[in-house]
Amino acid sequence: MTAKNIHLKDPASTNIWEVIFLYPGFHILIVHSVASFFYRINLKFMARLISQGARFLTGIEIHPGAKIGKNLFIDHGMGIVIGETAEIGDSCTIYHGVTLGGLGNSQIKRHPTIGNNVMIGCGAKILGPIRIGNNVKIGANAVVLKDVPDNSTIVGVPGKMIKHNN
Amino acid sequence: MTAKNIHLKDPASTNIWEVIFLYPGFHILIVHSVASFFYRINLKFMARLISQGARFLTGIEIHPGAKIGKNLFIDHGMGIVIGETAEIGDSCTIYHGVTLGGLGNSQIKRHPTIGNNVMIGCGAKILGPIRIGNNVKIGANAVVLKDVPDNSTIVGVPGKMIKHNN
Amino acid sequence: MTAKNIHLKDPASTNIWEVIFLYPGFHILIVHSVASFFYRINLKFMARLISQGARFLTGIEIHPGAKIGKNLFIDHGMGIVIGETAEIGDSCTIYHGVTLGGLGNSQIKRHPTIGNNVMIGCGAKILGPIRIGNNVKIGANAVVLKDVPDNSTIVGVPGKMIKHNN
Repeated sequence: MTAKNIHLKDPASTNIWEVIFLYPGFHILIVHSVASFFYRINLKFMARLISQGARFLTGIEIHPGAKIGKNLFIDHGMGIVIGETAEIGDSCTIYHGVTLGGLGNSQIKRHPTIGNNVMIGCGAKILGPIRIGNNVKIGANAVVLKDVPDNSTIVGVPGKMIKHNN
Repeated sequence: MTAKNIHLKDPASTNIWEVIFLYPGFHILIVHSVASFFYRINLKFMARLISQGARFLTGIEIHPGAKIGKNLFIDHGMGIVIGETAEIGDSCTIYHGVTLGGLGNSQIKRHPTIGNNVMIGCGAKILGPIRIGNNVKIGANAVVLKDVPDNSTIVGVPGKMIKHNN
Repeated sequence: MTAKNIHLKDPASTNIWEVIFLYPGFHILIVHSVASFFYRINLKFMARLISQGARFLTGIEIHPGAKIGKNLFIDHGMGIVIGETAEIGDSCTIYHGVTLGGLGNSQIKRHPTIGNNVMIGCGAKILGPIRIGNNVKIGANAVVLKDVPDNSTIVGVPGKMIKHNN
């Protein structure tokens, strides 16, 4: 996502320079693209050295193997964990404290796949190799362990659907 | 809040010097008063430079625009996010992982107003321009999206009132 | 826990050097053993100076007084808070965002006691001087305020037992 898009999405930002210099959710995407490059050419230690350095600087932990679509907006970001086999579609918004994690077993695909235009509220945990559809909203602190169809809203622990085709 | 008050409130602190040198929840209040000064004289980039620097050092993100009353006690603090138009009354206690956040739309007042003597448990998310009354207790990981009257206790996702006039 | 054990438990680690150099959940255990030594010989300020320094470097806050068993595996770790009188048995796994905390009153024993072979999911909060039995699984974002018997699975806010003798 360009800094300009983040500025337009965040009512708290006063100008684009604030985003470029001060938004950890912007910095992490630049660093992730570098870490991801080293991961793909199989320099995995270097890849994780970069991603763990970025975790120290930003509080956001994205495994270099994670696939991230266009225009992701990470707001605040502290405490986010995104696993190795997670995939995120285009134009998503992810708040601080979100986990796209595994369930502790070791298949190849252990982490969720997120569709396009998905909003994941702060503190929500999405666990396992499940699929979150397009245009889904997931509420703060929700826990999602099953597939979610397109155009749904999910809240609660474990998460329940409260609206479909919203 | 003076370091002495924090020492008296926290059973884990052995003396006042521990609070002064080692409590991020004490340091952030000093930094916030500086960031808040620059925000009020409209040097907003400088204000956020300071608050984002403090986020790096403490793991606590308080927007310079947030209004904080007397004697706030922030315990542990990691992962706290307090938004630009949030207001906090006097003598409140806020644990780590708490969010006083918005709901992604862009009215002027986007964040909660918290009364006096409110306790917000770790991981709780309070979202939107709602009012939390005086003497309210909010449980760990609760999600609060509606006004809460004075003297209540709230738990759950989304939060339900379990006691009134407690 | 040895770095080798962590490598075997974590499907995302490619070799033991990754654990040794890049896993905050490994580093914090080494630092905690040092902080714990100073705490036991009653150099409490030095003990907390070390543990708060480690919090800055790792995002994990373990009070020097906490007692930790063998082979603890802390995964990711950001936002973990473990209180002064918490006790953790052997071979447990704790994910990021977990709190073993108190309820704000000041008895001597304020924090939980965790059995052996317990898995605590990301974002779970376990509060008060309660006992979590052996072989217990606690779900992501669960809030646990009461004793939990051996061989149980707990989810929800507040946590409910969903399986016993699992």
